[in-house]
Amino acid sequence: MSLKDSNEKLNMTMLCDFYELTMGNGYFHSKIRDKITYFDVFFRRVPDNGGFAIMAGLEQAIEYINNLHFSEEDIEYLRGRNLFSEEFLEYLANFEFTGDIWAIPEGTPIFPNEPVMVVRAPAIQAQLLETYLLLTFNHQSLIATKAKRICRAANGRTVLEFGSRRAQGSDAALLGARAAYIGGCNGTACTIADEVYGIPAGGTMAHAWVQMFDSEYEAFKTYCEIYPTNATLLVDTYDVLKSGVPNAIRVFDEVLKPKGITKCGIRLDSGDIAYFSKKARKMLDDAGWTDCQITASNSLDEHLIRDLLLQGAKIDVFGVGERLITARSEPVFGGVYKLCAVEDDDGNITPKIKISENVAKITNPGYKRVYRFFEKSTGRARADYIALADEEFDIENEDLTIRDPNATWKEFVIPAGEYEARELLVPIFIGGKQVYQSPSLDEIRDYCTRQVKTLWPEVKRFENPHTYYVDLSDKLLELRNNMLNEKRKRN
Amino acid sequence: MSLKDSNEKLNMTMLCDFYELTMGNGYFHSKIRDKITYFDVFFRRVPDNGGFAIMAGLEQAIEYINNLHFSEEDIEYLRGRNLFSEEFLEYLANFEFTGDIWAIPEGTPIFPNEPVMVVRAPAIQAQLLETYLLLTFNHQSLIATKAKRICRAANGRTVLEFGSRRAQGSDAALLGARAAYIGGCNGTACTIADEVYGIPAGGTMAHAWVQMFDSEYEAFKTYCEIYPTNATLLVDTYDVLKSGVPNAIRVFDEVLKPKGITKCGIRLDSGDIAYFSKKARKMLDDAGWTDCQITASNSLDEHLIRDLLLQGAKIDVFGVGERLITARSEPVFGGVYKLCAVEDDDGNITPKIKISENVAKITNPGYKRVYRFFEKSTGRARADYIALADEEFDIENEDLTIRDPNATWKEFVIPAGEYEARELLVPIFIGGKQVYQSPSLDEIRDYCTRQVKTLWPEVKRFENPHTYYVDLSDKLLELRNNMLNEKRKRN
Repeated sequence: MSLKDSNEKLNMTMLCDFYELTMGNGYFHSKIRDKITYFDVFFRRVPDNGGFAIMAGLEQAIEYINNLHFSEEDIEYLRGRNLFSEEFLEYLANFEFTGDIWAIPEGTPIFPNEPVMVVRAPAIQAQLLETYLLLTFNHQSLIATKAKRICRAANGRTVLEFGSRRAQGSDAALLGARAAYIGGCNGTACTIADEVYGIPAGGTMAHAWVQMFDSEYEAFKTYCEIYPTNATLLVDTYDVLKSGVPNAIRVFDEVLKPKGITKCGIRLDSGDIAYFSKKARKMLDDAGWTDCQITASNSLDEHLIRDLLLQGAKIDVFGVGERLITARSEPVFGGVYKLCAVEDDDGNITPKIKISENVAKITNPGYKRVYRFFEKSTGRARADYIALADEEFDIENEDLTIRDPNATWKEFVIPAGEYEARELLVPIFIGGKQVYQSPSLDEIRDYCTRQVKTLWPEVKRFENPHTYYVDLSDKLLELRNNMLNEKRKRN
Repeated sequence: MSLKDSNEKLNMTMLCDFYELTMGNGYFHSKIRDKITYFDVFFRRVPDNGGFAIMAGLEQAIEYINNLHFSEEDIEYLRGRNLFSEEFLEYLANFEFTGDIWAIPEGTPIFPNEPVMVVRAPAIQAQLLETYLLLTFNHQSLIATKAKRICRAANGRTVLEFGSRRAQGSDAALLGARAAYIGGCNGTACTIADEVYGIPAGGTMAHAWVQMFDSEYEAFKTYCEIYPTNATLLVDTYDVLKSGVPNAIRVFDEVLKPKGITKCGIRLDSGDIAYFSKKARKMLDDAGWTDCQITASNSLDEHLIRDLLLQGAKIDVFGVGERLITARSEPVFGGVYKLCAVEDDDGNITPKIKISENVAKITNPGYKRVYRFFEKSTGRARADYIALADEEFDIENEDLTIRDPNATWKEFVIPAGEYEARELLVPIFIGGKQVYQSPSLDEIRDYCTRQVKTLWPEVKRFENPHTYYVDLSDKLLELRNNMLNEKRKRN
């Protein structure tokens, strides 16, 4: 059985917080049993204080939903806990997801406090999905967002994901490579990520290869003879400038030159990369190996890459490992799953709000839609707009005032006819049936590149980016304020 | 198919860095082909500047080795890369691990620069294992080490792992829960971790439960009626002291008291936990609910837990999520895999060393063993001692001088007869056959608790711990210095 097949068949149903099941059994035996509920997935801040995040992990959410079922073994385990009724266990044994899910497609820039996924389903079902939907969204969006920062720092140079050995488990390696590719990486060192997802995997040698032979020269020569068209030589095992680069040039001259091959490479994995890369570049150029690419790897991230480039380092390819695959500077993406509405038997929707001492943690009530406004003349995204699902607006014919979400006295007008509104949440499941086909990974990656280009440069700054406006419609804001006031009065 | 079965059968063979395969094919077609090699797994520093780490992830390494094989699909993928010879692909199709592996058992405190795993195998095989062995060791040791810090901060109180939704993938959730349990957590919120590994899973309600009903009182009452013996009520949905705790007490009085139940709980998930817990404790005690446990959760880690306890917070159970499951403060465990020796056909072992500009990155050459010296009178571990495999020493009858690894002029004497030496690396595979049976998870956890007790308090300080001595034997130190000098002369 291959990992791909296994993953597709893998039953993640039991990868849920235990309270989803205790609540499920509780709903089952209470008046909530058949209540239709609405839950929003959203996050509150962009990691690394960035101006935007990248949506990812939806394809795995879809696979999870399609595979949802409790095996006999699962039911047996649950029965053994002596907490669940036989009726509920029977319900689980026949479990089927019958709800609706909307989500923002993978690769889309996303912003704090807007729903990136909306689940409408009977309470028991909606509750069960919480853990895994958050897990896949949080993990892959985290890595895609970090990868986008790193790739933007590399400014068009190749970035390869090298982190499997430091990943937090095998999924983190495989799906981390997937998310990194969505975020703009050009390839990976992770073989299975190529086999399963078609992410170009590459790599040539470790220090062990060089040490295994009697000399660095012999190690390089043997490698070049076996892989004349794919020879990136690791030049820092002994001494980069006295031994590594001279031996590489000697072997390129002896093995590649007679074959007319000009494509080759060296890799620096330690020491003063800025200094070594400049010196090595000069040595290679002087020897006529101007097409030789220099790869650098060694605990790199967006800050070190920008710094290396500012120092004039001569690097063509960045291999980025642990700081990408774990998003080391901020390894948590804080997506949450919050009840926003319940529906009665007549289809009337009652909005729900979660109050908090911490103002930033108060939720947006109601069943909502999210729109992005693109300026027609520039193609730039100017603001996102969250409205109740039944609201209508017409920016083609009417001006619309948009406010800064954190300072509602700051506002600007979307003049009639000048912007195009695109709805971000698209249907993924309707009535339990999948209605959305995930694009190919290359399509997602290209789409991500194009969508990030629609953001203004101010939003894309690494430090202190401009806060992109995510405004609430007047009706939604009024609803929210009324609900807050009501709760205040009640307490 | 259950996740457990899937994981056991899961083929992680292709979860390797691509260069393991290009090197493998290269070795296959060079004189290195049948060369027996020795690789050490070790790490260079303890995360969070701690004084020790906890070994974990070995059981998954064993499963991986036992499942190693390339499927037809894998071979087909590799053939399509046009880099590998048919002879090598045939070798892979019939791949079998024939080597030896020694490792330090899970749950053992481990220290920088000592081999925690040693692989002796033909070059191609040893190289192939690199990525996955590092991945499982790095991930689980990271989480076990973090969990041990958090549990020590909780000072005997219950610590539950609550992080699945923020884990970096499903393995990170499941195996992270396993590692957290090894490190001392008492349970998890992750259902599948209980089903697969028997880690006690628990949990009661989310805010959504409370919001779903017409009132907090109704939500609490319904829950208590369904789960009278397992009622931990989440009291911070509206207002902890004005609404949450009073409603909890009312419901305990109405539902639990008539049944004679005194065991119950409340959970605080936001706001000023120190303040709320003290106030809530008083309210509960005044109402006669002295057995009611208070659980706190909300981005906790070892620092916040110590701080809460210093403030006199009345908390019985800590639920720890994202900061544990991602080891947020330092989410990378830097284990490396380094060639330390090669063996010729006559069984002669030639040590290998990796030089680096960075002194801390110079490796310890040779095939080695690791001993821990326990003082007989106290049972305390005093130092670890790395010696060449064929070295003999006799601390029963001879004094032994131990040096600080970072300052060799600092030394102390292990007096003859006063210490017991225990070899840390135990055989796991010999000639490709598994010779070690993993203890049960509870045994590992208990063993970990006992072993951490053998460390001096100075080594266990959270800040600026005493550096535990990991000394090299005289012979090993001499070998290392000689090899460094030789390399220096050669360059």
